[in-house]
Amino acid sequence: MTTLEQARTRDAADPLAAYRDRFALPKGVIYLDGNSLGPLPRATPAALADTAARAWGDRLIRSWNEGWIDAPQRLGGKIAPLIGAAPDEVIVGDSTSANLFKTLVAALRVSPTRRTVVSEAGNFPTDLHIAEGAVACVPGARLRIVARADLAAALDDETAVLMLTHVHYKTADRFDMAHWTRAAHDAGALMLWDLSHSVGAVPVDLGGAGADLAVGCTYKYLNGGPGAPAFLYVAKRWQERLASPLSGWMGHAAPFAFEDGYRPAPGMTRWLAGTPPILAMTALEAGLDLWADLDRNALWAKSAALWTIMAEAGAAAGLECVTASDPAKRGSHISFRHAHAYELTQALIARGVIGDFRAPDILRLGFTPLYLSHAEVWRAGELLKTVIADESWRDPAYAERLAVT
Amino acid sequence: MTTLEQARTRDAADPLAAYRDRFALPKGVIYLDGNSLGPLPRATPAALADTAARAWGDRLIRSWNEGWIDAPQRLGGKIAPLIGAAPDEVIVGDSTSANLFKTLVAALRVSPTRRTVVSEAGNFPTDLHIAEGAVACVPGARLRIVARADLAAALDDETAVLMLTHVHYKTADRFDMAHWTRAAHDAGALMLWDLSHSVGAVPVDLGGAGADLAVGCTYKYLNGGPGAPAFLYVAKRWQERLASPLSGWMGHAAPFAFEDGYRPAPGMTRWLAGTPPILAMTALEAGLDLWADLDRNALWAKSAALWTIMAEAGAAAGLECVTASDPAKRGSHISFRHAHAYELTQALIARGVIGDFRAPDILRLGFTPLYLSHAEVWRAGELLKTVIADESWRDPAYAERLAVT
Repeated sequence: MTTLEQARTRDAADPLAAYRDRFALPKGVIYLDGNSLGPLPRATPAALADTAARAWGDRLIRSWNEGWIDAPQRLGGKIAPLIGAAPDEVIVGDSTSANLFKTLVAALRVSPTRRTVVSEAGNFPTDLHIAEGAVACVPGARLRIVARADLAAALDDETAVLMLTHVHYKTADRFDMAHWTRAAHDAGALMLWDLSHSVGAVPVDLGGAGADLAVGCTYKYLNGGPGAPAFLYVAKRWQERLASPLSGWMGHAAPFAFEDGYRPAPGMTRWLAGTPPILAMTALEAGLDLWADLDRNALWAKSAALWTIMAEAGAAAGLECVTASDPAKRGSHISFRHAHAYELTQALIARGVIGDFRAPDILRLGFTPLYLSHAEVWRAGELLKTVIADESWRDPAYAERLAVT
Repeated sequence: MTTLEQARTRDAADPLAAYRDRFALPKGVIYLDGNSLGPLPRATPAALADTAARAWGDRLIRSWNEGWIDAPQRLGGKIAPLIGAAPDEVIVGDSTSANLFKTLVAALRVSPTRRTVVSEAGNFPTDLHIAEGAVACVPGARLRIVARADLAAALDDETAVLMLTHVHYKTADRFDMAHWTRAAHDAGALMLWDLSHSVGAVPVDLGGAGADLAVGCTYKYLNGGPGAPAFLYVAKRWQERLASPLSGWMGHAAPFAFEDGYRPAPGMTRWLAGTPPILAMTALEAGLDLWADLDRNALWAKSAALWTIMAEAGAAAGLECVTASDPAKRGSHISFRHAHAYELTQALIARGVIGDFRAPDILRLGFTPLYLSHAEVWRAGELLKTVIADESWRDPAYAERLAVT
């Protein structure tokens, strides 16, 4: 068991400790939900105010030529190093859902005989829901959802694309990216990764794994703000062969030539559809700029250390942990299964520890090393033990409190 | 010819004059480009700061249950009265391009024998580009682009949907909404309107016309900010019959039940895909709130009066106006055709009058009665006459200046 003193000693030696001051966190809260909505970087309000008052208010339409029009590419370039991509392999725009749709339809059009999207049961819902929508847009295509244990057997000469979420939103289990990318390629299929719970949480090397496509969310570990724009990755070798079904004007080769016919832009720009959401991009860029000079190896190590502190507390409380203990096989959150997980979540929130409940029986706690200290996670672990011990979660009144999801 | 004195007299009697103070406009600029990017409402920076610091920073994930999750429906309800819709017929989210894609694919799935999308040549590019993408997602579907004069003849028993932009982005010509909706219905097709250059610019009555579907932009006359989220309208009678091909989790009947299978939510919610962009929604809501107690009839009348002042100046300068003179047949901008339209646009900008150039030969000037005075438009007209008269636009050096589109 880690002691409070040990936790404090680690904090004193923490190379990331200075990052905490770069976030505006409310007093009295231990925020273990940055894996759902990352907190506010201190730089963000000023960045938003500048974009609103100066760029929009003063410069007006002229700002499109003063940093707005290329924001999707510029921000993509800032995400690239976090996922093992080249700067011109990533673009920011639309939602993860929309980007999944674009990449799935494009992947289904590569080969006329490969008609299935393979994914796993219990994947994050929008991935499966969007895949349903995507296969309905390609003649003969279908979605094959199998249990994780049956994924390898499901890959065959009809598989167009294997779509997996790198780190599972519920269990935090992490796929071996290189292994599964190879498995998809061995079957002749493309590999599409959803990095929503990975980017900024664990090392990601799309290039090293040889992945073809990826999408991901920026409002979790990248601290881009609620509903921040998502990103999309296409490996260089596919960029001129794939095109977006959402063929909007911002992805046109010459958007201001106002041609009736669609011609996809070269490179990643073709994946844009409508006009980029500049205010949302501004907030995201402030979040991304925190990563510029960061020692990412220190981050991964601290994530593992924070995780262990909470795992010890959970074990001491007798909780069932459903997350892999090997850091290489998990993300940066921990999930405990409990029949009263909902009530436990509420009891923790009432004590200032914000985590979240995932139906039907998961208490989920996320660790974001940029602003969490070891001592804080230790205190949260103590509170978890207290909550379990006092058994107030057995009181039916807890069930009547509204969930904070 | 309207005189400066007459313009000032009208300003003195203008019931909308007080609205000007609700915008932050730079000094020395007459902004005739609110039809491209509406200016900054004074309330917006404070709204953004509050969402960032309080709702995001302090309340964190809890804000999803404190006004965020229903923002798409709430903002839709605020747009509804501007387009003749019921509050539960409009939802805000994604881009106009994405919303066109959703509605077109859905409309193409209504009847197995109706396979064409009919639209007009020279429609706003993204409408045609997205329609290309949409027909590629429905077996047998195709896009039929014809000249405006041939639209009526193009409607037949193969037409699934007639897609028109109510007010043309270039000429400002306005379709008779009731007439064309009836023509589509007489042919057995659905009617889809793009209201990007209409909403907040001219009276729109989707309900009165019996229109089926509509989309539109909020960063022009609704002052929602650069790249603000778009809206989508589905007439009540279609809401349970159509579904979105972009079947993301936020459009699911129970998004937090985390089911593998997609079940569309009732009503307009099914048109959502990803997580709503809250910062962008915040700015848009501040723009929409300007419309709450507005005398819209005064607005339409002032738009027509501002237009006339500029039309008179253009005529005096010998410019060719390509916009209809009948206010009922146009939007709230005026377009002049000129071989040196690009250089004229730059010359006006150099004199503080911001309008825009639309390739290859259009100078476009927009009138947004919420913040423009009659005297201001009169002065812009005088500057236009000066620019034409001094012929500096014949100087090749003008062509070397970069466009501000």
